[in-house]
Amino acid sequence: MPLPAYSQLEERFRRMALIGEAAGVLHWDASAVMPSGGAEARGEQLAALKAVSHSMLSAPEVGELIAEAEATELAEAERANLGEMRHHWLKATALPEDLVVALSRACSTCETIWRQARAESDFAAVKPSLQKVLDLTRQVGAAKAEIFGVSVYDALLDDYEPGAKSADIQIIFDDLKSFLPEFLGRVLDLQASRPTPLLPEGPFPIDRQKALGEQLMTRLGFDFDHGRLDVSLHPFCGGIPEDVRITTRYDEADFTSSLMGVMHETGHALYERGLPTRWRRQPVGEALGMSIHESQSLLIEMQVCRSREFVDFAAPLMRDAFGGSGAAWQPENLYRLQTRVKPDFIRVDADEVTYPAHVILRTRLEQALLGGEMSLDDLPTAWNDGLHDLLGITPPDDRLGCLQDLHWFDGGWGYFPTYTLGAMTAAQLFEAASQAEPGIVPGIADGDFQPLMSWLGDNVHGHGRLSHAPELLSRVTGRSLDPAVFKAHLERRYLS
Amino acid sequence: MPLPAYSQLEERFRRMALIGEAAGVLHWDASAVMPSGGAEARGEQLAALKAVSHSMLSAPEVGELIAEAEATELAEAERANLGEMRHHWLKATALPEDLVVALSRACSTCETIWRQARAESDFAAVKPSLQKVLDLTRQVGAAKAEIFGVSVYDALLDDYEPGAKSADIQIIFDDLKSFLPEFLGRVLDLQASRPTPLLPEGPFPIDRQKALGEQLMTRLGFDFDHGRLDVSLHPFCGGIPEDVRITTRYDEADFTSSLMGVMHETGHALYERGLPTRWRRQPVGEALGMSIHESQSLLIEMQVCRSREFVDFAAPLMRDAFGGSGAAWQPENLYRLQTRVKPDFIRVDADEVTYPAHVILRTRLEQALLGGEMSLDDLPTAWNDGLHDLLGITPPDDRLGCLQDLHWFDGGWGYFPTYTLGAMTAAQLFEAASQAEPGIVPGIADGDFQPLMSWLGDNVHGHGRLSHAPELLSRVTGRSLDPAVFKAHLERRYLS
Repeated sequence: MPLPAYSQLEERFRRMALIGEAAGVLHWDASAVMPSGGAEARGEQLAALKAVSHSMLSAPEVGELIAEAEATELAEAERANLGEMRHHWLKATALPEDLVVALSRACSTCETIWRQARAESDFAAVKPSLQKVLDLTRQVGAAKAEIFGVSVYDALLDDYEPGAKSADIQIIFDDLKSFLPEFLGRVLDLQASRPTPLLPEGPFPIDRQKALGEQLMTRLGFDFDHGRLDVSLHPFCGGIPEDVRITTRYDEADFTSSLMGVMHETGHALYERGLPTRWRRQPVGEALGMSIHESQSLLIEMQVCRSREFVDFAAPLMRDAFGGSGAAWQPENLYRLQTRVKPDFIRVDADEVTYPAHVILRTRLEQALLGGEMSLDDLPTAWNDGLHDLLGITPPDDRLGCLQDLHWFDGGWGYFPTYTLGAMTAAQLFEAASQAEPGIVPGIADGDFQPLMSWLGDNVHGHGRLSHAPELLSRVTGRSLDPAVFKAHLERRYLS
Repeated sequence: MPLPAYSQLEERFRRMALIGEAAGVLHWDASAVMPSGGAEARGEQLAALKAVSHSMLSAPEVGELIAEAEATELAEAERANLGEMRHHWLKATALPEDLVVALSRACSTCETIWRQARAESDFAAVKPSLQKVLDLTRQVGAAKAEIFGVSVYDALLDDYEPGAKSADIQIIFDDLKSFLPEFLGRVLDLQASRPTPLLPEGPFPIDRQKALGEQLMTRLGFDFDHGRLDVSLHPFCGGIPEDVRITTRYDEADFTSSLMGVMHETGHALYERGLPTRWRRQPVGEALGMSIHESQSLLIEMQVCRSREFVDFAAPLMRDAFGGSGAAWQPENLYRLQTRVKPDFIRVDADEVTYPAHVILRTRLEQALLGGEMSLDDLPTAWNDGLHDLLGITPPDDRLGCLQDLHWFDGGWGYFPTYTLGAMTAAQLFEAASQAEPGIVPGIADGDFQPLMSWLGDNVHGHGRLSHAPELLSRVTGRSLDPAVFKAHLERRYLS
């Protein structure tokens, strides 16, 4: 007798997950250790794994198995898992294969041209390729939109933030937009009225930076029997719960940029590590969307590691790591450095206060481009004007403007909003955690992160995808995503 | 219109090769960088890739496509490729899946028990598991033997040395066996009559050992844009032609063991790197059997790097790498060290003269065990007696005797002969190369390996599997594998 339909599906998704894990190892390897000459073959290997996985998901029998399983009695979590399976299957079958291949090729081409174009600040050089990516992305979005009965933008957004609606995001971003410029002015005024913080003097040897990073990772609960810290050009968190791999890049002149990056990726890693083992390799056992994932990295980086309590705890460790002495290494000074606000052109270098402006701008522009209300010809000017409206600065060229981020050129449309949703979610989760567990904040001051990590494990990490982000947030914090919490956090930190 | 059958097969084997490459990255990662906590998941990932690959090969349509392609007109190389495809397909379909799974599980279990049993020198503890592996291996061999019309042993041997026959190997090994004991006695007498070579004094820092290894690898033609050197417990060569990865392990007390290991793996790597790009990812584009592969590593390690010419060239580099001085660093002394002969219990530590004895013993024993002429109960004694007959020494325990090698416990029956076939092939190829290209030997003395590598590329590496080892050897050296060449090499090097 064959296995029940649901069990057959679990087995199929398990195998697909394993192939995805293999692809993850290949990605990590390509970023962290692969010699340049292996790149082309690596692309072929990844494409082969993707093709295998896609054909397993879109095989004709999968739809029948899902329908059969839906008609049987299942536990609630199994039903949620089956719902995720249907969602994956619908997405895989919504798109004609030639469209998927065409978009994948267009992205590869565009990304290559973009690297050169960015270096030369030459938007015109990449515009035709970007137009192709945009057109194909719009087609993909339209195909998914039809299946799911949502707008094209929401269909794309769904890949990163399951079930999210741009109308809801709009309300939140409008709220922030009406708050930030005036708030930023007050922060900058206050900063200007105080002495400029001192920069600790380097150089900071890479091996010591690494040792300090590992020391703090271990404190936070990162287990090096189940993970690694390596170097890559673009820091990321990869791997699997049993073997989480984070990367960083080191700057010998400034240890804090790498260290905060390492703390950020550690937040991602601890989330992956805490996913529910009961649902390992099933859709419902995966991490929730990008806003929750980013909330975990930003909770560690922004809520915890840039807090006064953390800096008080970590300042002596930092000083000892580099044999530093003097006023620059005082906790008060290091805290001022860690919370310094400065409008800048580059998103990835932005502080907590100005970051949302970058995201709000990109979200508005990508919606306009996808909706056809704006053409790519107008992008550079719209970008520069938009940044000036929000932060009062104008990029001197497109390298520091609309060419800075890979996302659009690589097909990542609908991703940007999740950064700021993540920052806001982090603030709201941290507030709820601190109220529920009075030991959390004093623990941070003592370098004891167990109370916090235990709360996060119970309330966030261990839930996988059993509910979507809005339900999880409401259940855990008692309300849906509320800009007031994020704003209150910014006011406490930057105006006191 | 569908593609012709042959083209469909090429595409299928190409995808299977890519999945195999992905598995190779996972193997390398597991050996070189994976934290211990990732081991179980890695096993699952590899099993999933294997299952995908196996189902692609054994799919019902493959046999039909092969038959269809065989009936069409094909170029000679395509026909050779198709022959390899049929061979792979026959092997994959010869075995019932439950037998494959049972053997794979038995090997995993046995390997785990063996690690403990070896540490405790307790053969009885692993005997029942080994019996299971042996029984299942015999079944596998019998199933393949029936398909291919060969003996059980030859069916197993075929996995490592395509088309080889144990009857031919027997003749060669008998020849060596009648030569070696007496020859060994003469070498040991000669050595004893000379002063004992001096050991350079360590410690030899690992970073300097690595730098020296990389320097010599580069000299030999290893391209670090297309490969890496890392550390693993058991040195190996993995990866793909575009990204060949070799590993070593370092001993701070003795730099030569790692260095010669690195040279050995570099020989494997240069072979992989030189495989025919025209046939990349097709069966006929793969490396020939293990004897040719081992011939390439041993040609570099034994024929080249332990030659007087090489040591004269490399001695100053070695000395400078470690800041050494004195008599121990003289080329003459280093050469004596590199060619020191000493009967020992452990195969992997054996010198060029005594190594074949280990192989001859294991080959005889595995044939007797598979053929049922000997039981596992008698293995430890038979091993010890056999080693005493060949080398005049008796292992004091089974850890230094029949428990030392992983092969049998992990299902690798029929592998051992290829080591010595490889050593002999190396001698014969090097002789032919040196005669064909008079610049090769003087080149080695100058540290210029281009004449040698160029000859190997043209005559060995670039041929892939377009012909089997015996045909390749006959074409390139003018005769089939001839023990006289190997013996002459040993006499020149060890009796002069």
